Amino acid sequence: MHGLTRSARVLSLLRRLPFRQLSRLQTRSFAHNAILRLHSEHGPSVKVVPNTLCTNAREHAASFPKRTHHCGALTLQDAGSKVVLAGWLLAERKAAKTMSFFPLRDSYGSTQLVVNMNHSNGILASMSQVPTESTVLVEGIVHARPEHQRRPIPSGDIEVEVTKFRLLNAADSPLPFMSSHAGKLPSEEQRLRYRYLDLRRPELSSNLRKRSEVAHIVRHVLHEEGFTEVETPLLFKSTPEGAREFLVPTRLASTSSRLPDTETTDLESHPEPLFYALPQSPQQAKQLLIASGAVDKYYQLARCFRDEDGRKDRQPEFTQIDLEMAFVSWGEDIPSLTTGTADNWRIGGGEVRDIIERLVRAVWSKVEGFELPERFKVMTYAEAMSRFGSDKPDTRFGLEIKNVTSHLPEPLRSSLIEHGEILEALIVDKAEHHIFGRAAKKIKGMEVEKRLDRIDIKDANLESWLEASKAIHTLSEVTPLSTTELNAALGVISGSTVWLAKRPRIAEGGSTPLGQLRLALSEEAQCSGQLTLSPKPHFLWITEFPLFTRADEDKEFLAHGRWSSSHHPFTAPMRQDIEKLYEGRISEVRGQHYDLVLNGVEIGGGSVRVHDASMQEYIFSNVLQLSESETASFSHLIHALRCGAPPHGGIALGFDRLMAILCKTETIRDVIAFPKTGTGKDLLFQSPAPADPAVLEQYNVRPRNGR
Amino acid sequence: MHGLTRSARVLSLLRRLPFRQLSRLQTRSFAHNAILRLHSEHGPSVKVVPNTLCTNAREHAASFPKRTHHCGALTLQDAGSKVVLAGWLLAERKAAKTMSFFPLRDSYGSTQLVVNMNHSNGILASMSQVPTESTVLVEGIVHARPEHQRRPIPSGDIEVEVTKFRLLNAADSPLPFMSSHAGKLPSEEQRLRYRYLDLRRPELSSNLRKRSEVAHIVRHVLHEEGFTEVETPLLFKSTPEGAREFLVPTRLASTSSRLPDTETTDLESHPEPLFYALPQSPQQAKQLLIASGAVDKYYQLARCFRDEDGRKDRQPEFTQIDLEMAFVSWGEDIPSLTTGTADNWRIGGGEVRDIIERLVRAVWSKVEGFELPERFKVMTYAEAMSRFGSDKPDTRFGLEIKNVTSHLPEPLRSSLIEHGEILEALIVDKAEHHIFGRAAKKIKGMEVEKRLDRIDIKDANLESWLEASKAIHTLSEVTPLSTTELNAALGVISGSTVWLAKRPRIAEGGSTPLGQLRLALSEEAQCSGQLTLSPKPHFLWITEFPLFTRADEDKEFLAHGRWSSSHHPFTAPMRQDIEKLYEGRISEVRGQHYDLVLNGVEIGGGSVRVHDASMQEYIFSNVLQLSESETASFSHLIHALRCGAPPHGGIALGFDRLMAILCKTETIRDVIAFPKTGTGKDLLFQSPAPADPAVLEQYNVRPRNGR
Repeated sequence: MHGLTRSARVLSLLRRLPFRQLSRLQTRSFAHNAILRLHSEHGPSVKVVPNTLCTNAREHAASFPKRTHHCGALTLQDAGSKVVLAGWLLAERKAAKTMSFFPLRDSYGSTQLVVNMNHSNGILASMSQVPTESTVLVEGIVHARPEHQRRPIPSGDIEVEVTKFRLLNAADSPLPFMSSHAGKLPSEEQRLRYRYLDLRRPELSSNLRKRSEVAHIVRHVLHEEGFTEVETPLLFKSTPEGAREFLVPTRLASTSSRLPDTETTDLESHPEPLFYALPQSPQQAKQLLIASGAVDKYYQLARCFRDEDGRKDRQPEFTQIDLEMAFVSWGEDIPSLTTGTADNWRIGGGEVRDIIERLVRAVWSKVEGFELPERFKVMTYAEAMSRFGSDKPDTRFGLEIKNVTSHLPEPLRSSLIEHGEILEALIVDKAEHHIFGRAAKKIKGMEVEKRLDRIDIKDANLESWLEASKAIHTLSEVTPLSTTELNAALGVISGSTVWLAKRPRIAEGGSTPLGQLRLALSEEAQCSGQLTLSPKPHFLWITEFPLFTRADEDKEFLAHGRWSSSHHPFTAPMRQDIEKLYEGRISEVRGQHYDLVLNGVEIGGGSVRVHDASMQEYIFSNVLQLSESETASFSHLIHALRCGAPPHGGIALGFDRLMAILCKTETIRDVIAFPKTGTGKDLLFQSPAPADPAVLEQYNVRPRNGR
Repeated sequence: MHGLTRSARVLSLLRRLPFRQLSRLQTRSFAHNAILRLHSEHGPSVKVVPNTLCTNAREHAASFPKRTHHCGALTLQDAGSKVVLAGWLLAERKAAKTMSFFPLRDSYGSTQLVVNMNHSNGILASMSQVPTESTVLVEGIVHARPEHQRRPIPSGDIEVEVTKFRLLNAADSPLPFMSSHAGKLPSEEQRLRYRYLDLRRPELSSNLRKRSEVAHIVRHVLHEEGFTEVETPLLFKSTPEGAREFLVPTRLASTSSRLPDTETTDLESHPEPLFYALPQSPQQAKQLLIASGAVDKYYQLARCFRDEDGRKDRQPEFTQIDLEMAFVSWGEDIPSLTTGTADNWRIGGGEVRDIIERLVRAVWSKVEGFELPERFKVMTYAEAMSRFGSDKPDTRFGLEIKNVTSHLPEPLRSSLIEHGEILEALIVDKAEHHIFGRAAKKIKGMEVEKRLDRIDIKDANLESWLEASKAIHTLSEVTPLSTTELNAALGVISGSTVWLAKRPRIAEGGSTPLGQLRLALSEEAQCSGQLTLSPKPHFLWITEFPLFTRADEDKEFLAHGRWSSSHHPFTAPMRQDIEKLYEGRISEVRGQHYDLVLNGVEIGGGSVRVHDASMQEYIFSNVLQLSESETASFSHLIHALRCGAPPHGGIALGFDRLMAILCKTETIRDVIAFPKTGTGKDLLFQSPAPADPAVLEQYNVRPRNGR
């Protein structure tokens, strides 16, 4: 198949060549077939076909009356009316001796059609013959269903007696699968391949409608709040931080330097290929927009792209609710101007917080019928890491981590402190045994425990269990280690399970081993039915993240020094930490970054940005130690700051993830019309696919394997 | 600069390698520098800088009070209030001896600040020192302006006496250019390079806001009409008709077949590169969506991509208002069901027409304050070509083309008819001389006249002018050719100018030479002030286009036979012409395509689609004579039709073009936040740009010139 497509493309190239070049090319074998074809274009005319095809086509194209209602619209009040419905005809169900029922489904719902064999004038015969899921149109009369047959779904109170029936488009029989056979769905791979059948499932259809509804609410709120929707470029520029960008070769800019008429087709004469890149987010564009002053409050439902190794439930293209605001606060120091009650929000960007809380409240109110509190809770990163071992804590259940350092016997305690470390514990004690006891047993020896000390407390080791901890062995060889104080402080008794782990006093990264254990225990406890989480959504802001992260092997670009930006290099430091930034106490500098977490899932993040060009340059060169060329690639941004950029900040919410939560599905593939697989394959459109080398040449690239 | 970025990227690659591979690599020179750098990462720490930088930064980060108003918000009613404003400070203007005025501008408008030198406590001194277009915050008191100084603009009735002043962010002095110096703007190239300065111009800022407003109206109307917004893939599949697609190489799918640990790094072992393509429109995806039944009415403000040689005022990425509806009519043949008054709309898709007219009416009503008629005019393609020589006629002025065939003397008339041709004329007669006379003179000998016979009628040639026509010379050598009947029928008198051209009886293509002349005359007449077009927008539907076009050299893919699709291969034939389609009378088959034209500009187009799989296959193979592989690339669409697709149709409006018209600007660059040049260059982000060959290797491609 590919070979022939290639010939088609060659053909097209040839068509654009002047004839003399065409003659010259005839000697080349790859063009030969295509040229033969070009010559034969004035050959046979359109073939005339049998009349039956035409007759069928005319039938398919016959006019039909307009629908009067959708399939989810009729109620008892319509009883007696004549209606016209159209949709997909589902499988017949015979009842009594003379009645047949057919559900008729469209994207709005399902209506029960009834045909009485005795008065159907052949309608039943036609309908019975029609393959399931064919598109049909019926005229009929609405009847109330007998009371005991009524069902609490749209159109569940009525049925429609068919008086006229028309097949609009017959479906193949059999179809690859029946979306209406809920119990018999094939593998996800098959369903993705035939997505146009899978989308017929009411669950997916309803997800798409809900997504549209939420997008509309979001836009409505932001419009009311005076935001301007602006489209930013998707054909963007490759950036140094963009290790995972998609490149887009273009022939636009390079064509000017081509000399198609010269005889020299030497390889060396080809110009350098040029590329756009697809943006991972509109970050730079939106900052420039705000810096310009053209727009005071910007938003966009922005498509973003990331060429990642297929991680679980990620898509190479995704959508975010992206916004940015001029003149956001950099943190208040005039108490009289602070609005609302005091809480943990000690950074700037309160304006962004206000908008997002309003927006999320509107969505939950309209879509879930749930009124969220006026204010979402705020927790610092340090607190989240200490209590939950995660920077996106699931606060729907307890089982908090405890810092046990101060309860340790000496000299262990001092030794830990001296090393700048703490010892943390997760404990399933008597009070929590009925919730997490079974989970604790089940998890024993599993991967999630590997980096921890697990100690099952029994009468025998109640007073000596600390000695079993490997985490402390390097710190103290003094035994026995008394657990008396620990047991008292933590409520450890025989039958408890304790997990221990050391960590640096200042937390780093997204989670600790104890935090991961906590989630694993919760999952097990939910599976076994011992833990039922509240359906009430737990929204939480996490603030005061470390602005910089010690560069490790995972960090890639913009990390030549010891430090990389925890989020991105445009995030402003907390005003309280500016001195530390300039004094080089980098690990202590907290950023004006905020993450919005829902039920333990990060659904968005943003920050107040650096608007001071010299601070931005200091961060680039002194902290991140970027090369001059890397800094140069941000020169337009720095210059924009220098042209009088206002203080500004913004946020982006992951729209796919948000929708997955609202649609109560595990995978974002269920809230995307045409998703790709976890490895980035589009099974429906059969993409990505190889390209014709002749086409690639137009972009001045060739396969690594090619000539 | 490029070399260093490369080293940064190599560095990143190296970081991901296990150490043993790293050691092996050290011998290779390209990696050497990067490795040195990797080793030095634990070298010098963050450099500490002078205190002044920190002090400045603290000042920039100091908190500031919230704005109470925008700069376009204050009115006489606010006189006496204390206000806080923020924005960009424009140049000082001194008045009297003690007063200074400073306009303060934000994206909403401009407020006049007043400082009285005598009571300013140093405020004036600080403000005078601040570079123009710096970001500032002022507190002050609103005063009514003296009556004679009031101006009919937002905040034009008041001024604000400054009581407190703060510099938020100083602008460079000088800036590359001052957006506030309306008369002194640099070249468009300079303005595109510093787009964040150019966007400060109120015109551009207002265009962006209007674009957002129109998008909101569009979405609101479609939401009210029950449309579901669905996002379709941008990482799409390359299609045979897609000669102008952007390809997107990906490493996603190819990584699985890589063997990074094997010793053989032979070139031949690299997998074939794989590509997505950016869609030129969501056509296929939206048809599959409707075929699925998941969505009854779809819409999207869709980003589309076309890798074209930079044509005038085109952008490689653009936005369209894209919609599609299930169960649209295929043309009525039951008169009782026809809604509204009869007009020329004889094809299907009336539902699409209704929606678009409603939508456009809402936009014009809200944005322009202009109430459009309930129904837009409809004209067939044949009529448009005959009367205006264009398939997107500008109907704001007359000067219609006339078919003069029937007024020709014999045997000329019969000879023309025999050849299947007609003779057309454009005439500037006495009645129109005052409008187009000067234009007719000016245009003489210009390119637009080259393919026409131009005859200036004088007393001397009044009865013989037809003999001067070259167009008819091959048809008749009989002279004299009497013009008596022609003159009478057309009102030709001495002083008239006549242009003549032959064309085939059945019109083809988008315009005729006479149609182009007509536009040229109108443009000249407008320039010279003789013609003033009505400001009333002229909307017009063009229908009944030929479904297929004779393939010529310009046509590329899907045109192996004599015919290519005039629009796209999914357009349905008119029901009246189905027999002709199957009988092979291809030139006579009209399509159910509709274009929406505004003032001679095509702002959108759509069609009823083929929903019958066998008809679609017939068009692919018998009419377009696609190869099997080309047809195969549409196999998912054909299969979707075969799974019971409803009759459906849709449309796409060019949003950028629409906005340019609404913003009364000539170029779509003025309604796009970050546009590219006509040749596809982004001068702000410096894109497209070369890519690092090491990065390209990850995609299994390399420059044509490369190793």
